[in-house]
Amino acid sequence: MNGAELLVKTAQARGIEVCFANAGTTEIPIVLALDTTKGIKAILGLFEGVCTGAADGYGRMTGKPAMTLLHLGPGFANGIANLHDARRAATPVLNVIGQHATWHLPADPPLAMDVESLTRTVSGWVRTSESIETLSRDMNEAINASGFGQISSLIVPHDIQLAEARDEGIGGLDFVFDSVDADLITKAAQRMRAARKSALLLDGRALSRPGLEAATRIRAKLQSDLFAPSFFSCVERGLGLPDVQRIPYFPEEAISLLSDYDVVVIVSAHEPVTFFGYPGIRGHILTDEQEKLYLCRVRENPVKALEALADALDAPAHPIVRDAKSPRAQLPAGNLTAEKACLTVAALQPEHAIIVDEGITSGFTYYPLTASSPPHSFMTIAGGSIGYGMPCATGAAVASPDRPVINFQADGSALYTVQALWTQAREGLHVITLICSNRSYKILQLELSRAGITSYGDNARALTELNAPPINWVSLSRGFGVPAVAVDTVEGLARELRVGLAESGPRLIEMVLA
Amino acid sequence: MNGAELLVKTAQARGIEVCFANAGTTEIPIVLALDTTKGIKAILGLFEGVCTGAADGYGRMTGKPAMTLLHLGPGFANGIANLHDARRAATPVLNVIGQHATWHLPADPPLAMDVESLTRTVSGWVRTSESIETLSRDMNEAINASGFGQISSLIVPHDIQLAEARDEGIGGLDFVFDSVDADLITKAAQRMRAARKSALLLDGRALSRPGLEAATRIRAKLQSDLFAPSFFSCVERGLGLPDVQRIPYFPEEAISLLSDYDVVVIVSAHEPVTFFGYPGIRGHILTDEQEKLYLCRVRENPVKALEALADALDAPAHPIVRDAKSPRAQLPAGNLTAEKACLTVAALQPEHAIIVDEGITSGFTYYPLTASSPPHSFMTIAGGSIGYGMPCATGAAVASPDRPVINFQADGSALYTVQALWTQAREGLHVITLICSNRSYKILQLELSRAGITSYGDNARALTELNAPPINWVSLSRGFGVPAVAVDTVEGLARELRVGLAESGPRLIEMVLA
Repeated sequence: MNGAELLVKTAQARGIEVCFANAGTTEIPIVLALDTTKGIKAILGLFEGVCTGAADGYGRMTGKPAMTLLHLGPGFANGIANLHDARRAATPVLNVIGQHATWHLPADPPLAMDVESLTRTVSGWVRTSESIETLSRDMNEAINASGFGQISSLIVPHDIQLAEARDEGIGGLDFVFDSVDADLITKAAQRMRAARKSALLLDGRALSRPGLEAATRIRAKLQSDLFAPSFFSCVERGLGLPDVQRIPYFPEEAISLLSDYDVVVIVSAHEPVTFFGYPGIRGHILTDEQEKLYLCRVRENPVKALEALADALDAPAHPIVRDAKSPRAQLPAGNLTAEKACLTVAALQPEHAIIVDEGITSGFTYYPLTASSPPHSFMTIAGGSIGYGMPCATGAAVASPDRPVINFQADGSALYTVQALWTQAREGLHVITLICSNRSYKILQLELSRAGITSYGDNARALTELNAPPINWVSLSRGFGVPAVAVDTVEGLARELRVGLAESGPRLIEMVLA
Repeated sequence: MNGAELLVKTAQARGIEVCFANAGTTEIPIVLALDTTKGIKAILGLFEGVCTGAADGYGRMTGKPAMTLLHLGPGFANGIANLHDARRAATPVLNVIGQHATWHLPADPPLAMDVESLTRTVSGWVRTSESIETLSRDMNEAINASGFGQISSLIVPHDIQLAEARDEGIGGLDFVFDSVDADLITKAAQRMRAARKSALLLDGRALSRPGLEAATRIRAKLQSDLFAPSFFSCVERGLGLPDVQRIPYFPEEAISLLSDYDVVVIVSAHEPVTFFGYPGIRGHILTDEQEKLYLCRVRENPVKALEALADALDAPAHPIVRDAKSPRAQLPAGNLTAEKACLTVAALQPEHAIIVDEGITSGFTYYPLTASSPPHSFMTIAGGSIGYGMPCATGAAVASPDRPVINFQADGSALYTVQALWTQAREGLHVITLICSNRSYKILQLELSRAGITSYGDNARALTELNAPPINWVSLSRGFGVPAVAVDTVEGLARELRVGLAESGPRLIEMVLA
């Protein structure tokens, strides 16, 4: 058994089931080890951003890490943008990166670069394996570290992959993820009881079904309101689940919405801040006078912390979830707009659908429409790094092959990692991609109009418009092997979405928006 | 005038003409300044790897930097892989990266990451602007640093872009690039005279026409042989120019080829090393006994150094360039193979063509065929980071609108940055992309066979084959607005290549290789 086989056996023994990969010569021993060691499926991405984004989607759905296999510094660099989103979503991801042989690296061959510095920009845990003796332990520690909702990056030189290993090297070291801090719980309970008006701000596993059940108990006791950040990892949503409000993207609305709470308990989330610094507007949504309490730290379990808080508050064990204020969205009619596209999806999405939203401006109106939709999972662009949607949908579909994935996808962002379509085709994944074709970087145009700019010169137009030529999405999608169709009416979208939901493989629908 | 306008005016005053950009909210003031300050054309890339690769191609053709404009850490990260190639090619590139407002960054908003650490992995010069007073000087220093064949990365916070500036801030500081080290020249001349058999190893500007003219003088005097690394920046090649030999990719051939030289003078190149570390094969191509002399340092002018060396050797001023050993390649016939594709291009490429080669395995046989082709420029994947070809061809075409660009392009690598096709369509660039469609990562299969592996399991097959489904290149290309056709015979390729050369805009030809 060589080092590569030891590495893969360790991963397999720890329950890793999928490896999203784009390997090169320095990873060949690991590629071969994936053949000889059964139990881990290798899935090719045509670009590393597809691999890391898919690992993000997989991790958000399963709560456990997928492995990625990436080629040296440039390969890892191509995956950074989507790892940034995974980091902000606190998704467990396990990166394995090949490295030149230790004896060859000092020769500074063409592909050599500073891989460790690259990995540190997005990883909570980084190590370059230094010997075959520690390799299995390195891998175990990497897996443990990722389990706490971090990116782990293990760099493995080629000669260590090839070195002869002893079987005994595979070892345990399972991570523990059930601790809570009793003092934090007690203090939060005290402050919430004393508050005039309190809120819970939830992200990560706090937005899972058990997390929301505990939050619902607290809400039933104290009439606290439930919020999520503007962009978060994944929320369970729909009938029978509480309607968690998103903090609005633009700061004026966000500040206004949260201004009335004197105590905000933050669970697996960051303090809310504006997405960008706008001159004349404060960067923190909450004032210094509003009390902010953090219920748990990185290595503590937010679900157990919320349950402990509910217990500490003597909250009812099984409160009734209040009905959503509005009935289910109704199908609109006529020419397609961004708003009507949102209504159509909200009206038709089936139970257990996974919605991966990178609609950017086109998706602004979608979320509030779905409180009365059947239960579903809903993901957002947690770190704001565009190009996460298609890969994330791919990974979510790998994680949940029995659930349909609807990727509500802005056109400009889609073009960042459009290669994900091919992986969907190859793996026969049930992903329905809805392209919001508005042929512009609309968010930039919105920000320009906020800054008082409404007419552009040639350069500003060149950098904000995507027409001339327009992308032919049907042709592009078919080029990657995914059947595609374009629609410009609600009726067309409804028909094609129903077809896509009834079939099993991937499908792309270009929504030509007015 | 605000900081953004000062920045753009400084760039314009220093002769920057093109900005390859994908901007976000933090770069809006610079986008607007590109409108109000005339003289710099903004060109949109749909993904930052397109922008940085295009800047590489532009810099290789012109010897001066293009500007890129990139959005925060994730935007820069997407451009790293192609900047890695630019760094290895010693291409001047000037990156401008927006950053959150200085007062907002401590709030750690979602898109915040460690931009400086990212930029350092590929840049020779990095700075975050700290005030409006130093901004123009920062930009000048960045431009100077890039002029020495480096990547410069200037990070500009949003509030400094918006700060009020005084006109006086625009300043000179032109860089000087004509020094040589007389001691190095004298020593090299002595050692070459004393050598039994000497060689010149050339890269960067040493491979330009004046560099090669000086090298030809030296060859005429001492019968020295001329080499380039396996992968280099850009060589001028064809009739009337010396036939510079490339060092082979696989180490056995490289070691054998260079074993007979006792003195190797290295000009703007690195010591040759194997591309990867192969067990049992030494990493350095040259032995310790072979003398290696470096003719110039980073900030010295390799062309002047070669001319000074020729003078020191009393070499003839205008030697006759020896005729290439073989006549021009002849058009083959029949079903298309990689070898026949190479022959077809060598036979048909017109005078002044720019050949951007990312053919990987399919291009192995091309280079030796072109010593007798009409004079042309030829570029390679200098850093080995795949996905450089299409963006580099795009930037080369922007730099040289009156010359046809032929991008000889592997299919696997093309899929990394295929979005470049759209920029070619939008700008009407005369780029003919020849896709070597072998539907596999052939280089990995070759490396596997070198390691004795000939039959694969499911995982190794999944990670090395690109069929199931095959990419439909014609459909993909049309999706981006570039006319396309597929051919599987030499006759078809010759016909379509002639059409592409006769027309003016971009065109893609899928070469379905047997």
